[in-house]
Amino acid sequence: MSNTSPINHSGRLAVLMPGLGAVATTFIAGASLARRGLTAPTGSLTQLGDINQDGQHTPILDLVDLAPLDDLVFGGWDIYEDTAWDAALRADVLKAKDLEAAREDLQAVKPMKAVFDQRYVRNLSGTHVKSAPTKMDLALALIDDIETFKQTHGCDRAVGVWCGSTEVFVQPSAVHMDLESFEQGLRDNNDAISPSMIYAYAFIKSGTPLANGAPNLGLDIPALQKLALDTGVPIAGKDFKTGQTLMKTILAPGFATRMIGLNGWYSTNILGNTDGAVLDDPGSFKTKEVSKLSVLDSILDKERYPDLYENIAHKVRIDYYPPRGDNKEGWDNIDIFGWMGYPMQIKVNFLCRDSILAAPLVLDLALLLDLAARHNRGGVQEWLSFYFKSPQTQDGGLPVHDLFVQRTHLDNALLEMKK
Amino acid sequence: MSNTSPINHSGRLAVLMPGLGAVATTFIAGASLARRGLTAPTGSLTQLGDINQDGQHTPILDLVDLAPLDDLVFGGWDIYEDTAWDAALRADVLKAKDLEAAREDLQAVKPMKAVFDQRYVRNLSGTHVKSAPTKMDLALALIDDIETFKQTHGCDRAVGVWCGSTEVFVQPSAVHMDLESFEQGLRDNNDAISPSMIYAYAFIKSGTPLANGAPNLGLDIPALQKLALDTGVPIAGKDFKTGQTLMKTILAPGFATRMIGLNGWYSTNILGNTDGAVLDDPGSFKTKEVSKLSVLDSILDKERYPDLYENIAHKVRIDYYPPRGDNKEGWDNIDIFGWMGYPMQIKVNFLCRDSILAAPLVLDLALLLDLAARHNRGGVQEWLSFYFKSPQTQDGGLPVHDLFVQRTHLDNALLEMKK
Amino acid sequence: MSNTSPINHSGRLAVLMPGLGAVATTFIAGASLARRGLTAPTGSLTQLGDINQDGQHTPILDLVDLAPLDDLVFGGWDIYEDTAWDAALRADVLKAKDLEAAREDLQAVKPMKAVFDQRYVRNLSGTHVKSAPTKMDLALALIDDIETFKQTHGCDRAVGVWCGSTEVFVQPSAVHMDLESFEQGLRDNNDAISPSMIYAYAFIKSGTPLANGAPNLGLDIPALQKLALDTGVPIAGKDFKTGQTLMKTILAPGFATRMIGLNGWYSTNILGNTDGAVLDDPGSFKTKEVSKLSVLDSILDKERYPDLYENIAHKVRIDYYPPRGDNKEGWDNIDIFGWMGYPMQIKVNFLCRDSILAAPLVLDLALLLDLAARHNRGGVQEWLSFYFKSPQTQDGGLPVHDLFVQRTHLDNALLEMKK
Amino acid sequence: MSNTSPINHSGRLAVLMPGLGAVATTFIAGASLARRGLTAPTGSLTQLGDINQDGQHTPILDLVDLAPLDDLVFGGWDIYEDTAWDAALRADVLKAKDLEAAREDLQAVKPMKAVFDQRYVRNLSGTHVKSAPTKMDLALALIDDIETFKQTHGCDRAVGVWCGSTEVFVQPSAVHMDLESFEQGLRDNNDAISPSMIYAYAFIKSGTPLANGAPNLGLDIPALQKLALDTGVPIAGKDFKTGQTLMKTILAPGFATRMIGLNGWYSTNILGNTDGAVLDDPGSFKTKEVSKLSVLDSILDKERYPDLYENIAHKVRIDYYPPRGDNKEGWDNIDIFGWMGYPMQIKVNFLCRDSILAAPLVLDLALLLDLAARHNRGGVQEWLSFYFKSPQTQDGGLPVHDLFVQRTHLDNALLEMKK
Repeated sequence: MSNTSPINHSGRLAVLMPGLGAVATTFIAGASLARRGLTAPTGSLTQLGDINQDGQHTPILDLVDLAPLDDLVFGGWDIYEDTAWDAALRADVLKAKDLEAAREDLQAVKPMKAVFDQRYVRNLSGTHVKSAPTKMDLALALIDDIETFKQTHGCDRAVGVWCGSTEVFVQPSAVHMDLESFEQGLRDNNDAISPSMIYAYAFIKSGTPLANGAPNLGLDIPALQKLALDTGVPIAGKDFKTGQTLMKTILAPGFATRMIGLNGWYSTNILGNTDGAVLDDPGSFKTKEVSKLSVLDSILDKERYPDLYENIAHKVRIDYYPPRGDNKEGWDNIDIFGWMGYPMQIKVNFLCRDSILAAPLVLDLALLLDLAARHNRGGVQEWLSFYFKSPQTQDGGLPVHDLFVQRTHLDNALLEMKK
Repeated sequence: MSNTSPINHSGRLAVLMPGLGAVATTFIAGASLARRGLTAPTGSLTQLGDINQDGQHTPILDLVDLAPLDDLVFGGWDIYEDTAWDAALRADVLKAKDLEAAREDLQAVKPMKAVFDQRYVRNLSGTHVKSAPTKMDLALALIDDIETFKQTHGCDRAVGVWCGSTEVFVQPSAVHMDLESFEQGLRDNNDAISPSMIYAYAFIKSGTPLANGAPNLGLDIPALQKLALDTGVPIAGKDFKTGQTLMKTILAPGFATRMIGLNGWYSTNILGNTDGAVLDDPGSFKTKEVSKLSVLDSILDKERYPDLYENIAHKVRIDYYPPRGDNKEGWDNIDIFGWMGYPMQIKVNFLCRDSILAAPLVLDLALLLDLAARHNRGGVQEWLSFYFKSPQTQDGGLPVHDLFVQRTHLDNALLEMKK
Repeated sequence: MSNTSPINHSGRLAVLMPGLGAVATTFIAGASLARRGLTAPTGSLTQLGDINQDGQHTPILDLVDLAPLDDLVFGGWDIYEDTAWDAALRADVLKAKDLEAAREDLQAVKPMKAVFDQRYVRNLSGTHVKSAPTKMDLALALIDDIETFKQTHGCDRAVGVWCGSTEVFVQPSAVHMDLESFEQGLRDNNDAISPSMIYAYAFIKSGTPLANGAPNLGLDIPALQKLALDTGVPIAGKDFKTGQTLMKTILAPGFATRMIGLNGWYSTNILGNTDGAVLDDPGSFKTKEVSKLSVLDSILDKERYPDLYENIAHKVRIDYYPPRGDNKEGWDNIDIFGWMGYPMQIKVNFLCRDSILAAPLVLDLALLLDLAARHNRGGVQEWLSFYFKSPQTQDGGLPVHDLFVQRTHLDNALLEMKK
Repeated sequence: MSNTSPINHSGRLAVLMPGLGAVATTFIAGASLARRGLTAPTGSLTQLGDINQDGQHTPILDLVDLAPLDDLVFGGWDIYEDTAWDAALRADVLKAKDLEAAREDLQAVKPMKAVFDQRYVRNLSGTHVKSAPTKMDLALALIDDIETFKQTHGCDRAVGVWCGSTEVFVQPSAVHMDLESFEQGLRDNNDAISPSMIYAYAFIKSGTPLANGAPNLGLDIPALQKLALDTGVPIAGKDFKTGQTLMKTILAPGFATRMIGLNGWYSTNILGNTDGAVLDDPGSFKTKEVSKLSVLDSILDKERYPDLYENIAHKVRIDYYPPRGDNKEGWDNIDIFGWMGYPMQIKVNFLCRDSILAAPLVLDLALLLDLAARHNRGGVQEWLSFYFKSPQTQDGGLPVHDLFVQRTHLDNALLEMKK
């Protein structure tokens, strides 16, 4: 169990990812290059960032005891049998020469069979999938996978980061409310238990920290949050804050601090990768939309500033558009108003790369969850909100979305865990 | 002298503006409506903002003792004889019905004759201008104007906010270095002393706080900064942080906190108002460009993050384009890079309104400088950096540009001055 | 019947519009000002354009015998009882002083009761609506309206221009195929006959030319096209070519003439007027989408240029976004490719005004249909494709969408009808 | 002399380019792949286009007798000694695998020594440059180069396409007016004769057709235009119509045909290749600006349409911005107006690739000039305006800029020269 591990890192750390697609393979390739000094780990706060203490900047790497890149071992599950090398080729994110430089590390990663059910991700169909009579059996198989991986690869510890697809929206119901009901649901193959919940159960049950990079509710259900808290397993979610939402949580605090009003915010996204194909299904889109829409509420607070933020028309579109590939693109139209209510407009066109923005978050979350586990911090890690579109809160309250406030919370937590 | 005034406000406050053009008249019109409850003072932190103390939000209006809107009396100088009403019509910023609602307050403002010299603002020519043998005589006339205005309008106190045009760039030289040389220069009509410096001298000498909304060096010269410090007169500058630069100091901290790299930032502005016509002169543009270019350096620190910010191609254009009128528009192309150095692009098109963004800053600066004066805070007010493109520092060090850090400094200063 | 009218115009011309909303009232206001010389009829080819004959430019007004602006009398039907003046105020398209200048003409227009059925326009509900036992009775009432209007207002001739909302998509079926079935359907209240079809029948039956500014199928059904042809009544449709589609049919011919390839074209629209509210209903959106999607096919011909246009990902979005009002805005992302297949991108952001672009089309279509009627041109007028998103063809073949080819066809037709 | 060549092509055609940089090497690489069927010649009208004769589409390749790709031999001059292979690597336009596929053809091209003078292109300095006592000697050396190349490579005919840099603006003067003065100027080393004029003289004198892809005045001077006409040598210029100007001549005809007015057009370009570095010099920029600004005048004719186009604020910026490399990018802000003068805006952001757009123009111009020469068409070829930002006219009159009218002229000329 994680809560018995020593506070200082030692030995190897398994980074286990459900979903070895574009994000996971881009992360592995970059980590592979970075640990050999072939690239800077751009975008990774743990590797490049520092903490400002009264004007003194201390590198995070010096401040806290993080697992070094050299100690990471990569693994995961996927619905296709491809190695990470083949998956990276298919994802078409990285240039040939960059992939080549990471070939060895990528080829070493062979996915374990995934837990998958097409009813929850309708636009994908898997061929490398576990089969078992009950969902509880699937969970136990995952627990076994984790243990086996650690032993096989000589790892002392493991962490998980969900890098898989977005499932259809599942309404929370009674089966999610307490552990007993949930475990009974696993045994009964209850329809309200999606694959991402089975993974979440398996990770927590095996004492392995888990971050959730997708908007799935896997880590959001009360039964599992309580289990994580009770057993001292840190968890964090949900949905990597990357392109458009990242921009929103940068811009909106700027408007708020200057008392600039907002009439509307229209956001459209076009993307052509697997994530886009999955979100072309209305069920999966609904899950994502819920995640993306909430972000303005706590930054532009209509209770405190009714003159400014009472009537915001906030709309989010995501469209599958194959020519774009992994190069997700966002267009935002922002209708602000200033002195005497006069309207102004801001248009933001973000030509981003989904996996390039997400990959360093996988690294940071793996290292920080491992750190938290060694500090016996169980349950929801609110201080990791910095990384998520739809941050979890311990008490279910309104999350902080302001990127700069999130960063302050993260810094404070690191200072509490300093060496 | 300001340092003898009581700490609590009482009586009327004269707000005196060199330059009664688009910004000043928009400010006056909005203040006129706001104090009658006809509009919210959108964009004004002092009127709408609050301070977060451990989760408690205290309105700034409750926290510190600011002059109420009702106590403000507006005045100023201009190179045209028009009242503020006529100037507002000419500026064509506000809709007819909004102007009409402020007619009385606007018509009451008749400009005093300006200190002006076309060699410093080549694309304007004034008709309502003081004439005197020496620059010292002009300064004394301004001091007399301030006193006369206060008496005529029954004001206990005054503050100044420069709302005039951008002068050509003046190289700092010996005459600016100490008070004796400067006063000798005034008597000698030294060419290196521009009109904005004459105003600055007059304000400080008469114990009146002054903010500088343009990129002129009026408040930047050592002789006057020392005079302000020695005599307890608060000063603040320079160049209102409104459109594109405001966006830069919102966005850049977002990149920095996420360790996202930057290859280049290309900014172009089109504007068609008087400000644009003035900046069409290369001399004035140079002054503005210096002000706009420095903004990224202290946010994207190449010393701390050489991997991310060592080679930034930063370019700023301003073009006079009459169809745009006062609706200044910016287009930014931002070349960022992420994981493994992969490039991404952000384009920001800001359809803003120059005077609408600047007007609430005039209000805040007037009120906060008056507050500072009553608290005996003389010299450069670094905590007002929040409002400026090119903030002054007391020791001439690198200024803070990060909007969110600036806001923290402002909040801290307000807490020190709380009732 | 129109085919008995003399070839030269004489007397007054009634311009009758089903739907007296933003477009119709903006048209009336502008025509009112233009005929008194208070504005130029910008956007109207008939009023400002000329025809190039071997380098000689002849104004269209000189070339053909069009009804003068002074002879136009405006009228129409609406589901609200408001006069055009009230409707124009509600539409909030024009500035107060422009409306004021047209007040007399606007107040003179009192709508006749509309034929309306909410099942075909689900997001509107009307209060000023005809009631009758059968759809045939409704048609006869409209025919009576037309006659009465002409007599009451002393008009020799009438033309109609549909300026109403977009109905839900109706599948063509047997009832639409021949006149006998259609008239039986009117008597039987057949569900496949929408209000716009009832109007179309009434106009054609009364010998009155009709243009269709919306994507409704009112004029597209075989029974009515044949009736129009047989009885010499000119008809033209459908869906005014205004914002984004206008841009498409300008840009796409440019790519084609330079042999530039296309991978994809993503279009999103945001609009906040009644048209937007109506299109928020999926049924109405479907009608519009069909109209908007077809536009590229005949310009970027994949049969002739398979290397360039075989695989185009073409996507169109329309989103109801209230802050935008009538100022419809489009954002297009165009993925082109050139030499050696290298990709390039064009982004077009069109901040347009729906009614401002549509109003001059109402004028042109009214005048040109009247001209055509006097020249005994019955049935579908292909040469008016220039004005439509989804042009009708006489034989049901693929329409021409290239704006420049459409213009050539229009010019040729005018030359055939020259004085 | 070209006017003695047979009308049908036979034997090999030398394509000689002054300036073997990004454009020329991209052209060579693509032609190399296209003639082996490895890529489609996208962007080349001669290779992919057809002519519409009464609805029948005849491929241009079938209509006229063009030299086949297989018969082309590539050569040229450059101020660096690099082969086309090395130059292409340095230009960094094409991906490694595309370059590799063209390696043989690229390595075969070894530049001849250039005629160069840094006073005309201040931001470049050459190392592979001819030296001779007079400009006439340099011209004769070029004539000798052309002949030698033809003999060495077994070519029957040659054509030239200027692919070099933009020279500083040279005011036309007496020395340019007639051949005698010009030749005397060559002998006298007259300062008003730039390198591009020496090339132009050499090409025409040797009977070799020449196109001018840059805004230099090389082909614009009366002495040389008359020489070309008298000796039957076809010439065409100037300045390839590629990115932003191409878009302008697509969009502006669309506005004009719909009678949409224009208040202003603001264009900015950012580019980071050698072309950008050269244009960073104000002298070279002036030449380019003159070429780019004229384009709207003949499309948006203020004589014919004073209500629409009398007051256009047209502004063009070009900025050197290294992060962009060869991926030239344009941002256009277009202020149009419609019905009743109401303003609307269009923003166009073109992420283009300079060399990718220019390369197929090199091919087309080479083939079409060779065709024209065989048809004894000497002097300025107005029908090739389709390819140029600043088209030459035979009589010095206002050129046609409308891309669609230009295309019609081109089609007509091809029909005159059909097999």
